[in-house]
Amino acid sequence: MSSAWTLHERLAADTVPVQDLALSRLLVMRDARFAWAILVPRVPDLTELHQLPAADRDQLMLEVTAVASVLAGLPGITKINHGALGNLVPQFHWHVVARHPGDAAWPGPVWGSGAAVPPDPAALEQLVAALATIGPA
Amino acid sequence: MSSAWTLHERLAADTVPVQDLALSRLLVMRDARFAWAILVPRVPDLTELHQLPAADRDQLMLEVTAVASVLAGLPGITKINHGALGNLVPQFHWHVVARHPGDAAWPGPVWGSGAAVPPDPAALEQLVAALATIGPA
Repeated sequence: MSSAWTLHERLAADTVPVQDLALSRLLVMRDARFAWAILVPRVPDLTELHQLPAADRDQLMLEVTAVASVLAGLPGITKINHGALGNLVPQFHWHVVARHPGDAAWPGPVWGSGAAVPPDPAALEQLVAALATIGPA
Repeated sequence: MSSAWTLHERLAADTVPVQDLALSRLLVMRDARFAWAILVPRVPDLTELHQLPAADRDQLMLEVTAVASVLAGLPGITKINHGALGNLVPQFHWHVVARHPGDAAWPGPVWGSGAAVPPDPAALEQLVAALATIGPA
C-alpha cells in the first residue's frame, strides 16, 4: 500500500513553495548564491525517474522546461543546469539551476558546493513571483 | 543556417560509443570509477533542454530512462544520478550515472569529482554490451 504524498522534510526546510503544477510541487531554494528551482512530482514513494509512467515523465519535462525557460531569461544567466541525484534525499526531485561564469560554483556543479547563503527576502520574493507566472498546467 | 551535427571533440575523447538511438548517440565514459552513460541528441547547435521540441524531449526521456533501467540493474547499484550541465562542454548532453554508497564520489556528484581512472578494457566492453541491448528505438 502506498502512503499519501508529503514533501520530504529536508526539501521543505531548504526551500520556499511557489505553486503546485499539474504533476509537481515547485519550490525555490533558500540560497542567495543561485536562482535554483526544485520540482517534486507528487507521486508517493517515487525515488527514480525511470519509475515514472511515460505520461507523467513527459508532464514532468513540460514543467521542468517551463521553469528552465523562466530562469534562462533572468538577467546575466547564460546556462541552465539540470540534475536529479537523490543521494541524500531519497524523494525524487529535479533541480533547475540558473548559472553564469563567475557564480559561486562555476564551472562546477552546485550540488555539494559549499553552504547556502541566506537569501535577501525581496530577491527571493521576486524569484517566486517570476516562477508563479508559469501557471498551473 | 545550421551546421551538420557532429559529436563535440571533448565528449568523443572521454567516451566510447555504444550505438545511435532514434534521437541520441549513446556513449559510455572511459572511467573505471563509475558506470556512466552519456546521451547526446543528434540535433545541431543544441545547448539547452528547453530548446528541444516537445516530441524530441519526450523521445530523449524514453532513451534516458531505458539507459537508467539498465544501469540500475547492475550489481551493487542503489541509485541513478541524472544531470545535464554543459558548463564546460556546450553541446547538450545528458549524464546517467550508476551510484552506490562508498563509490568514489558518494554522496557528492560525479561532476568535478577528481580525475577519471582508465577503465579495464573487459569491464568497459561488458558495460557497452549491456547498453547495446536497448535497441535502436
